[in-house]
Amino acid sequence: MAKKRVALILAGCGVYDGSEVHEASAAMVHLSRQGAQVELYAPDVAQMHVVNHVTGQLTEEKRSVLTESARIARGNVQDLAQLDVKDLDALIIPGGFGVAKNLCTWAVDGKDCTVSKPVEDAIKAFHAARKPLGLCCIAPVLAAKILPGCEVTVGHDTECETWPYAKTAEAVKALGCRHVNRNVHEVHVDAKNKLVTTSAFMCNAPIHEVYEGVGKMVAEVLKLA
Amino acid sequence: MAKKRVALILAGCGVYDGSEVHEASAAMVHLSRQGAQVELYAPDVAQMHVVNHVTGQLTEEKRSVLTESARIARGNVQDLAQLDVKDLDALIIPGGFGVAKNLCTWAVDGKDCTVSKPVEDAIKAFHAARKPLGLCCIAPVLAAKILPGCEVTVGHDTECETWPYAKTAEAVKALGCRHVNRNVHEVHVDAKNKLVTTSAFMCNAPIHEVYEGVGKMVAEVLKLA
Repeated sequence: MAKKRVALILAGCGVYDGSEVHEASAAMVHLSRQGAQVELYAPDVAQMHVVNHVTGQLTEEKRSVLTESARIARGNVQDLAQLDVKDLDALIIPGGFGVAKNLCTWAVDGKDCTVSKPVEDAIKAFHAARKPLGLCCIAPVLAAKILPGCEVTVGHDTECETWPYAKTAEAVKALGCRHVNRNVHEVHVDAKNKLVTTSAFMCNAPIHEVYEGVGKMVAEVLKLA
Repeated sequence: MAKKRVALILAGCGVYDGSEVHEASAAMVHLSRQGAQVELYAPDVAQMHVVNHVTGQLTEEKRSVLTESARIARGNVQDLAQLDVKDLDALIIPGGFGVAKNLCTWAVDGKDCTVSKPVEDAIKAFHAARKPLGLCCIAPVLAAKILPGCEVTVGHDTECETWPYAKTAEAVKALGCRHVNRNVHEVHVDAKNKLVTTSAFMCNAPIHEVYEGVGKMVAEVLKLA
């Protein structure tokens, strides 16, 4: 059997202004273990923010989403403009604030956000080709915005210490999508849209539970591919 | 049983100028799964280099080892100067060129390198207290330099496509240490020194094999703790 070719879209390197590194790493490890070939992409644009991850404060620095993503990719990352759905079997987007800052404007505009053109094009192309999408953490909002009426989980919809970002579920519902409460080690599969989602670090959970949840997402995506 | 408390020393964020993010993430995931409490540390110093991870070229930028390490640590990282061996049961140092650039001068001086004072102090303190050390990738050179006559692996000692950095083993031997050839999914345990080493990305291996090797290192360290 030919290796499944899976595109991963990165959004920088670091939870507060880029891709969450452990979610990205977990996706890469699980894909590798299951024999998939991973192709890493990132948009060649400036980051919306550069955040000092010790203090949480914005800095004056300018950094490139593509160049910082290469830190997770160990250098092996392509400009998202080069992505061609014909060469690929599935698309996965890990979370981190970079998704809400560099791939769309959710961090500023919430449900009224705009999704950057190459990201929207990629999601629509995989969806139209009936190739599966795997989105974790905050990334399911991309599907909620682009695929009207789809079903996703971003964890739970009632805020508490375990689910500090539960309001995201309300915004997903306001977009006309169905939000399904799921725990961090669970995924939701929207079979009609071939869309697999899991909460990852939307949950205040130990890192190994996030790792396992991302693993389940990867397994379901590969089943659908 | 009380949770084992394990210090992890980071050296930045990114294989070419900091900690290798997947090795650091793997250590954190495996420690979390085994119920250990992880305390992340990094030296509060400037990085030796800032490398563009797309091109591999040095840039003119200045970045802080502590601040960049916080990207892996999700903000939860302390100045290495605060580390107190009394509060901790074991020490683990993931690899990446940052170890050879920011924790010692191996990248420039090889076996004639100097190890930065707080890193040397930490390794000597754990060793003197008979608390285990886990080092992967290039990090075993720190032990080779500081603990004369110790046994380590940095993978294999014959250069080939799988082992591009095999000359490191020769330098370890030149320091009077015993180098033990081990594959990427294996560890070497120097029981006398309570020192556990594994090659990680010194091997040109699929990422899930590196993840598993780091997992074996974590398991052996916790057994010794």
